[in-house]
Amino acid sequence: MSRRAPKSVIKRLPVYLRILDNLIRRDVEIISSRVLSEETGFTAEQIRKDLAYFGAFGTRGTGYNTSYLREKLLRIIGLDKQTKLIVVGAGHLGKALTRYNMTKNPYVEVVGVFDANPGEAGIEIEGLKIRPMEELPGVVKEHNVKVAMVTVPAEYAQQVVDGLVNEGITAILNFAPTKLRVPEDVHVHNADLTIELQSLIYYAMENEKASLPNNV
Amino acid sequence: MSRRAPKSVIKRLPVYLRILDNLIRRDVEIISSRVLSEETGFTAEQIRKDLAYFGAFGTRGTGYNTSYLREKLLRIIGLDKQTKLIVVGAGHLGKALTRYNMTKNPYVEVVGVFDANPGEAGIEIEGLKIRPMEELPGVVKEHNVKVAMVTVPAEYAQQVVDGLVNEGITAILNFAPTKLRVPEDVHVHNADLTIELQSLIYYAMENEKASLPNNV
Repeated sequence: MSRRAPKSVIKRLPVYLRILDNLIRRDVEIISSRVLSEETGFTAEQIRKDLAYFGAFGTRGTGYNTSYLREKLLRIIGLDKQTKLIVVGAGHLGKALTRYNMTKNPYVEVVGVFDANPGEAGIEIEGLKIRPMEELPGVVKEHNVKVAMVTVPAEYAQQVVDGLVNEGITAILNFAPTKLRVPEDVHVHNADLTIELQSLIYYAMENEKASLPNNV
Repeated sequence: MSRRAPKSVIKRLPVYLRILDNLIRRDVEIISSRVLSEETGFTAEQIRKDLAYFGAFGTRGTGYNTSYLREKLLRIIGLDKQTKLIVVGAGHLGKALTRYNMTKNPYVEVVGVFDANPGEAGIEIEGLKIRPMEELPGVVKEHNVKVAMVTVPAEYAQQVVDGLVNEGITAILNFAPTKLRVPEDVHVHNADLTIELQSLIYYAMENEKASLPNNV
């Protein structure tokens, strides 16, 4: 299809994929958009519209073949081959992300974890040694890495990202609470946990206010 | 104002707050919506529309008073008093979140970190002892906690969340890659790092395809 899928659609594709992975694990072969809707929380109409961006995958009245749809989604997202990535910053968050992706995420391969602190270098996470920053360019080149997760302190993030862009990284998942400047052809997603937390607090406080006497 | 602000607006408020915090640190007293736009990446029109949900904060042609707007935002979000929260699950991610919020986030106070693994109990994070799950109800009650971050493995998440809801938690930031069932008056935000990563990979792979010869 020639229409470009909007970002909101792209963000839902991995959700569909996860549901399909679960269904296939339970040997479910066919799923209706109604059931897919219950599992994801998105409306059946939304799901049909999202998938229509990439072609016709379901049969009217029958539903979707889970394995077929999963294969298609993998290809659409670009997960049909394992994506190699690096983690920059091996604090608690960097370690958590590395371990999670090495043990629970079959679609990616962490090929390097880097930290500027020499004290961290040499420590192993699931058999992968934390390396000093100097070794980053070699690893990126050797594995043709395009994707990096950045979990360094905010004050170093821009400098680290400039270096990554320089080495050919084109996709960055940024956990540092700061806005990064990158060239137009580099994608940055900000996984900003403080902002998630604060917008959640808004809703929690709204509950509190609503439960106060006289609703003040 | 009586119009209820949509979720997308609520998610941008903490971004404005962070920019204002930075500006105030640099002694900037007045900011135009144009500059606020450059700093946030949102259009000036979007910013004006977002803030209009909560009243009139700027003066036409002059801009916003940074301290005044910050105070207003704190009150709107519900951050004018420190929010007490707990962290459930003290793996690498739970530890990272606890440390970050204790040292870098002035708007919240972590009053308890809990883990089902007795091996973790007693370990300290920034002076806060990891406690066994049995002590959770007492801490929630003592501090009247409404907000929890959940970083337990996916297979335990629902059970843990059922317990939290039972203790009176009404706002949950969930890091477990699973869909949670909660009563209608409980808010769950899913901070799903795998889904962030996978949608990022989509864009990275799109770059790759575009750079292939003949654009195949």
